[in-house]
Amino acid sequence: MDVMSRIERALAAAIGRADHPSCPPLLAAAMHHAVFPKGARIRPRLTLAVAAACGEDDPDIADAAAASIELLHCASLVHDDLPCFDNADTRRGKPSVHRAFGEPLAVLTGDALIVLAFQTLATGAASNPQRLAPLVTTVARSVGVPNGICAGQAWECENTADLTLYQQEKTAALFAAATVAGAAAAGAPAEAWRLLGERLGEAYQVADDIRDAVCSAAELGKPIGKDAALGRPSAVLQLGLKGAIARLGDLAGDAVESVPPCPGQTSLRSHIMSETRRLLPKEVARAAA
Amino acid sequence: MDVMSRIERALAAAIGRADHPSCPPLLAAAMHHAVFPKGARIRPRLTLAVAAACGEDDPDIADAAAASIELLHCASLVHDDLPCFDNADTRRGKPSVHRAFGEPLAVLTGDALIVLAFQTLATGAASNPQRLAPLVTTVARSVGVPNGICAGQAWECENTADLTLYQQEKTAALFAAATVAGAAAAGAPAEAWRLLGERLGEAYQVADDIRDAVCSAAELGKPIGKDAALGRPSAVLQLGLKGAIARLGDLAGDAVESVPPCPGQTSLRSHIMSETRRLLPKEVARAAA
Repeated sequence: MDVMSRIERALAAAIGRADHPSCPPLLAAAMHHAVFPKGARIRPRLTLAVAAACGEDDPDIADAAAASIELLHCASLVHDDLPCFDNADTRRGKPSVHRAFGEPLAVLTGDALIVLAFQTLATGAASNPQRLAPLVTTVARSVGVPNGICAGQAWECENTADLTLYQQEKTAALFAAATVAGAAAAGAPAEAWRLLGERLGEAYQVADDIRDAVCSAAELGKPIGKDAALGRPSAVLQLGLKGAIARLGDLAGDAVESVPPCPGQTSLRSHIMSETRRLLPKEVARAAA
Repeated sequence: MDVMSRIERALAAAIGRADHPSCPPLLAAAMHHAVFPKGARIRPRLTLAVAAACGEDDPDIADAAAASIELLHCASLVHDDLPCFDNADTRRGKPSVHRAFGEPLAVLTGDALIVLAFQTLATGAASNPQRLAPLVTTVARSVGVPNGICAGQAWECENTADLTLYQQEKTAALFAAATVAGAAAAGAPAEAWRLLGERLGEAYQVADDIRDAVCSAAELGKPIGKDAALGRPSAVLQLGLKGAIARLGDLAGDAVESVPPCPGQTSLRSHIMSETRRLLPKEVARAAA
């Protein structure tokens, strides 16, 4: 089974828990809306790529790790879009969860997705229970306090914020969890994989800044120009468009270099090269070539 | 060390993760505000009482289970108080988190507490890793979909709701997790403990309905009369005050009867009797005696 099918199957199994008479139908629908149809699934593909490179021996736990990372990503998008944060009307080209289902269900959808992420890990670890604690810890670190997505987002509520910390916590932390969890799911020494995730997270952030600056809302499926409007740090504002594109190239190179020794090192490096190339919008890539 | 000290110490250790330069100080303060100073800690005391009755052999994992239950309870209170739900100004006799810190930090505080609950379990299970998956599953079931707190709260967003399901999911589910997790933390067969938690959860709900109907806001530390104002089901509205008090007595008796065979069965039964007596406001208990 190909990687995308594995991810969609694992996510469908997780979200399927809500399809039960004891679950309010609107909550089940809102959770489905938040997770499907598929986004790029960049983070869970990274998890499975690292697990494969480490000689994956238990597809169930690798799928669970990948799904948990994506569920947490979706949860963070649902809560980030809320009126008290970005107040975004659209996401992935359709109405945001609170626009489609109202604010109460959007809060509960995010909450339920966070819980489901950890439940999915516990279910997937049935054959390798000794791998569960490192996975829960890795995933929790990337979304909680003091270094995860919640912490990153909360810098927006402070009068002064460390911009490097803000970006590391809000974006790079979950990428780092994606690589570390991939290795941990395969039973490999996992912390050595953190740097790769952090570099890729930073590259993704720079690519996002570029897209936010140059793409139309229709191409992006979400509102644009938010960084400038909200006074957020942006690689394009700091380095200019050309500088940001060069920075993205450097980060991609650093990421490739940082892949630890493992059975599938060569193929993982090619995978990372092609993935990071896809981050850039086509017209920007053409202009930069 | 007495039970309350164990619980406060475990909660302080968990919340202490936020006290780090990489965590936004307002988020750390809001998390602290949500969890301290102590509430009655009814659920975690129940967890430790069940663990002790089952012959607790690993205090670290029992403390972690108790703390995770209380962290999830606090998270649910923070999100329930939000303007889009109860819009409550006070909680435990002080401003609700969103009144004290604003709505964005209240959303993030709830999220971070949910994550912290699972992280706390993973840390506490270090000596008994095989007990982690059942604990994560038990705790997640009680707060997620299809049967947990999120599902219960989401019934408020439906046009028609099954009131029994609503109360089971919103209140009894976490009490059931408190008893089941206590047994699981002690390495005992755990599912037999679900009925006790459900009965106690129902008793607590009836007691809460009684307090909502007869106490002043100052005594309660939170707004009163919310059930009637929001058209919520209430044992007092359904059965009258006298009927509700009788129902509470029946549920307490059922709870005592449902305690499974275990080394500490007798002392646990007395504990439950005295705990359920404390649920009733003093003046109501006097009047009913």
